[in-house]
Amino acid sequence: MAHVGIVAEGRPYVIPVLYARNGTELYVHGSPLSRLLGTLAQGVPMCLTVTLVDGLVFARSAFHHSMNYRSVVVLGDGYPIADREEKLEALRMIVEHVAAGRAGEAREPDHQELKATEVVALPIREASAKIRTGPPVDAADDYALPVWAGEVPVRTRFEEPVPDTRCTEPVPTYIRDYRRAYA
Amino acid sequence: MAHVGIVAEGRPYVIPVLYARNGTELYVHGSPLSRLLGTLAQGVPMCLTVTLVDGLVFARSAFHHSMNYRSVVVLGDGYPIADREEKLEALRMIVEHVAAGRAGEAREPDHQELKATEVVALPIREASAKIRTGPPVDAADDYALPVWAGEVPVRTRFEEPVPDTRCTEPVPTYIRDYRRAYA
Repeated sequence: MAHVGIVAEGRPYVIPVLYARNGTELYVHGSPLSRLLGTLAQGVPMCLTVTLVDGLVFARSAFHHSMNYRSVVVLGDGYPIADREEKLEALRMIVEHVAAGRAGEAREPDHQELKATEVVALPIREASAKIRTGPPVDAADDYALPVWAGEVPVRTRFEEPVPDTRCTEPVPTYIRDYRRAYA
Repeated sequence: MAHVGIVAEGRPYVIPVLYARNGTELYVHGSPLSRLLGTLAQGVPMCLTVTLVDGLVFARSAFHHSMNYRSVVVLGDGYPIADREEKLEALRMIVEHVAAGRAGEAREPDHQELKATEVVALPIREASAKIRTGPPVDAADDYALPVWAGEVPVRTRFEEPVPDTRCTEPVPTYIRDYRRAYA
């Protein structure tokens, strides 16, 4: 999951989206965006940010509190995908990014569904990544303070799948052993 | 944690931040923003979005795949807090939002640290919340398809605290029993 930012009438909007990466491009499920912007124009300045929180970092001083995390900020100009085959392939990649193996099983979008789905391609023009790991770093004098310091690790857990009540199919392996594409 | 969006030279930027809520205002730890914007002007259009993912929703058709989630999008014009006491209180609230009980134990910012910390107040002018829960909703004809459908619940787990190697203090209760302010 990512948060994508766009500008409308000079104001920023930040929306949670699903996405996939195809080499030097990102594909973004655009429906939440197009509701906001109307029909997306060509070359819309966009920022797509992904953040994974790995831990809360407690220092002895308020100032040095922090998070352990991995984040990436991608800048570029997005445009809606018009070509039918390219759009289908982008949607497949978004589904596969969420759950590898799924695109081959789920029914593909029909003509109406495809028309109703906006997919935005975002060529990666600039990107920056940040990673923080490890313990808190306090000012030298503060290590003597009687304040607990350390990290509370944060993990994302995927629990037992819950079948739809109308579903009698067995649970596929890629669902039973579900894991994030990028751990 | 939130993702905050701002506009600089017509382009959107989306940055992960820590924050707190004080009635009709949000406080945002502004340092990551000010690095981007230089000195923040008065009344900067901002968007602050918080998203909690509760589950991945697998429908029989690609089109009806979805997420269960809770999100809120807040719009307003942010401004840097100049007043010393207000800034200290805002920082306390941000620390307390991350871990209730912590602000009373950690050493408060000194003069230099306070100067080096930017805190942005964001009065909530407009906000919208979205929640999706429950099973997939497929088109009537698709329920007969031999495709597994259901939800993979997603949970955030806070693991055993890891003390800093130079820390000999006992683990405080609010760390040992750590939980998010809004579950």
